[in-house]
This record gives sequence, C-alpha cells and structure tokens, in this order.
Amino acid sequence: MKKIAVIVAGGSGTRMNNEVPKQFLLLKGKPVLFYTINSFLKAYDDLKIILVLPEAHIAAGQEIIDAFFDYNRIQITAGGRTRFHSVQNGLAMITEESMIFVHDGVRPFITKQLIQRCYAAAIETGSAVPVIDSKDSLRMITENGNEALERKNVKLVQTPQTFHSKILLPAYSIDYKDKYTDEAAVVEAFGLKINLVEGDEQNIKITQKIDLIIADNLLEDTPVIS
Amino acid sequence: MKKIAVIVAGGSGTRMNNEVPKQFLLLKGKPVLFYTINSFLKAYDDLKIILVLPEAHIAAGQEIIDAFFDYNRIQITAGGRTRFHSVQNGLAMITEESMIFVHDGVRPFITKQLIQRCYAAAIETGSAVPVIDSKDSLRMITENGNEALERKNVKLVQTPQTFHSKILLPAYSIDYKDKYTDEAAVVEAFGLKINLVEGDEQNIKITQKIDLIIADNLLEDTPVIS
Repeated sequence: MKKIAVIVAGGSGTRMNNEVPKQFLLLKGKPVLFYTINSFLKAYDDLKIILVLPEAHIAAGQEIIDAFFDYNRIQITAGGRTRFHSVQNGLAMITEESMIFVHDGVRPFITKQLIQRCYAAAIETGSAVPVIDSKDSLRMITENGNEALERKNVKLVQTPQTFHSKILLPAYSIDYKDKYTDEAAVVEAFGLKINLVEGDEQNIKITQKIDLIIADNLLEDTPVIS
Repeated sequence: MKKIAVIVAGGSGTRMNNEVPKQFLLLKGKPVLFYTINSFLKAYDDLKIILVLPEAHIAAGQEIIDAFFDYNRIQITAGGRTRFHSVQNGLAMITEESMIFVHDGVRPFITKQLIQRCYAAAIETGSAVPVIDSKDSLRMITENGNEALERKNVKLVQTPQTFHSKILLPAYSIDYKDKYTDEAAVVEAFGLKINLVEGDEQNIKITQKIDLIIADNLLEDTPVIS
C-alpha cells in the first residue's frame, strides 16, 4: 500500500516570540527536522512525506529539503491554528488510498523499527498508536480537587499515529474541539476504536532546552543516520 | 516545625539482576544518591534524613554518608517489598510531630526552591504534592479497549510528596494495595484531600540509561552542589 508520512512541525506561532522553533534547532550540526524526515525516508523506499510548517517557516523547511533530500519525495504545506488544523491541511493533500503516518516533527529519534511496527499493525486493524507506560504517578483534576489515576491503566501516547486513509480522511471532517490533542482522539470522536502498539522510550519529543541536551547525547549512542 | 526527609532508594530487589541500582550510578564522579541527599541537607539546616535502602545496599549507602555527610543528620533503614512498604519502614522511625518529605532517591535534581515551596504549602494545608503537565497525549486502558484522557486534566506527579506527620503516619496504617504507587494515593485512600503544588520539569526520575545521560548533562547547566 502507498505510504505517506504527514510530519507536523509546529503550529502557526500561537506563542509569538523570537525563539528558534525546536524543529530547526541543531543536533550535531543538523536541524532536528532533518533527522525526523530522514528516518521516514529510510524506513520505506516508496514512502512520501507531507511536511506541515508554519507559513513563516516554509522557506526554512525548503532549505533543509534542498540541502539533504530528494525533493520528489517531499511536499510542504502551511500549518493551521492548532495541531488539529495543521494535520487537516496536510491530509487535504492526500488523494490516494494510503497508509498515513502522522508524526511530530520534534520527535527525531523515531526508528525504522517503530515505523514498521506501526505499519504492520495498522494493516491488520486500520490503526496503530504507539504508547509507553508512565514512570510517574498521575492525578486527575476534578471539580472538587484532584484524584489518583491508576498508573497501570494509563499510557503516554507517542507518534507516528498510523491510520488507513479510509479512516483518517473522513475523521478529519469533524468539527474541532480543544480536547483533540492528537489524531487518536479525533478518530475516536469519529466513532472508531484505536489500536495501541508498543512505543519506544527513546522516541522523545523535544519541547524544551533540557530535551535538546538529551537529544544531543542520544545521537552519540544511537546512529540515526545510516 | 521539625523537618524529616524520607528518601526512598529502590525496593528490596524485586528485579534481581546484576545491574548497579540507579541510585548508586555515578554522575560527574558522585553517586546519584549523593546529589539527592545533599539538596535536602542544604534546604534546611534543621532537616534530618531517613534513608530507606534495600537490605543488600545499606552498606553502600553508609559509605556515601561517611564520605560526604554529617552522620548525625542521616539514619538508614531497610526497605520493604514495594515502595509502600519501604515508606512504611521509614515512617516507623518517626516519633515526633514533623513535616515529612517523601522523596525518590533517583530524583537528584530536586531544588531547594521546590523543597521550600512544598514546605510552605504543606504548612498551610497539611499536604503538598508537586505536579507538572503532561507533554504527551494520554490514553486510559478500559475493559473494551482504550479511550482518550483529556490531557489538560491530568498531572504527572513528582516528589517530594510532603505531609504533616499527623496525616501521613496514621494514613500508612492502611492495608497495602497495588494501586498505591505514591504517598498521595495512600493519603487519599485514607480519606483526605491532596493539595497540589507546581513541580519542576528538571526534577526528573532516573529510571534508565537515557535518563542518566540527561542527568549528566543537566549537571553542567545547573550547579547542584553549593
């Protein structure tokens, strides 16, 4: 089946400041986004990428593609107000039946193994959402305060969230709600069940300086570029 | 009020293997546990520590104390089968009215500021449990599969979980259940409300190799030892 990765790299700048977005920060001299894109291109020869970037960063994204990759395999489109809207913009470019991987641009340590595990599971069931256990106890905020959640029943969700186009494309015709923090929530709200697969502890999301320090060191251990 | 930190450093070896427990791994030449103990001793001059260690590691713990600290401020006791039982053993040594901080031995980046924030809040309300937001979407395992949890309503729990002795000591007379993954769950099961305070993103729990890499680099940024 055709394979398309929709790589979502930041909203359209709801937090307006002068910081370089995390996807463009350098890890061992290359932008975070380089590693993310590279992993997907290496996972399957016939995989194509739709890169969703804030309007203001499309030129920067194009520079990365021109410098490192085969431009025939990557298209860029502009992001929206939220992650939901950015994914929606990416999906709008998909016209063929395909397996769709929606992935955070700021998770550069995605492995070929995890991508292939998601694909295999989604071929079987229509969806594959990678999750890991929480190392921390969890509490739920309630009307009157807060209460413990049973940790063993809660999973932390990673990406690539992987869905057959026949599921994901119609699901994204739904009206946006704040609680749609990922694709699984959208597909579930559309009435479909979500199939979980085992994620990867190293598939971290770079959201702050400390994460970049981690990431820089992970590269020493993990040869990301083949 | 008297201040006592119960530092819990590993169970009694439910995972029997030859690995060095994380609390004894070295960060910049000193054991993880050194940094944890040091932060508490520096936070308050009148704070004392009860260090709870697996029976087999008490000698190693005593060596750390002898090498670096004033032994008058630190007592060691043996851990139990689970974290709950280890904390219970630590609490059994407390006879005076006090403010009790229960802290993970493998969270060495605990700051004076967070310890003092917990103390101030617990003086007001009897309890203070530090929490941070989840950066990941979350799913709950249910009888029939799984469903999205609203991320904005869920908090990841850190330590030091801080309670007045009048609350924590009687709460730990409760019978053990698997779901008591932290002190807050025990106090709540005992029928009391939990007061949350803002945690600290850098107050990470070292549970695997990648965390140690992070930790080693955090030390370069954050002068932990004054």
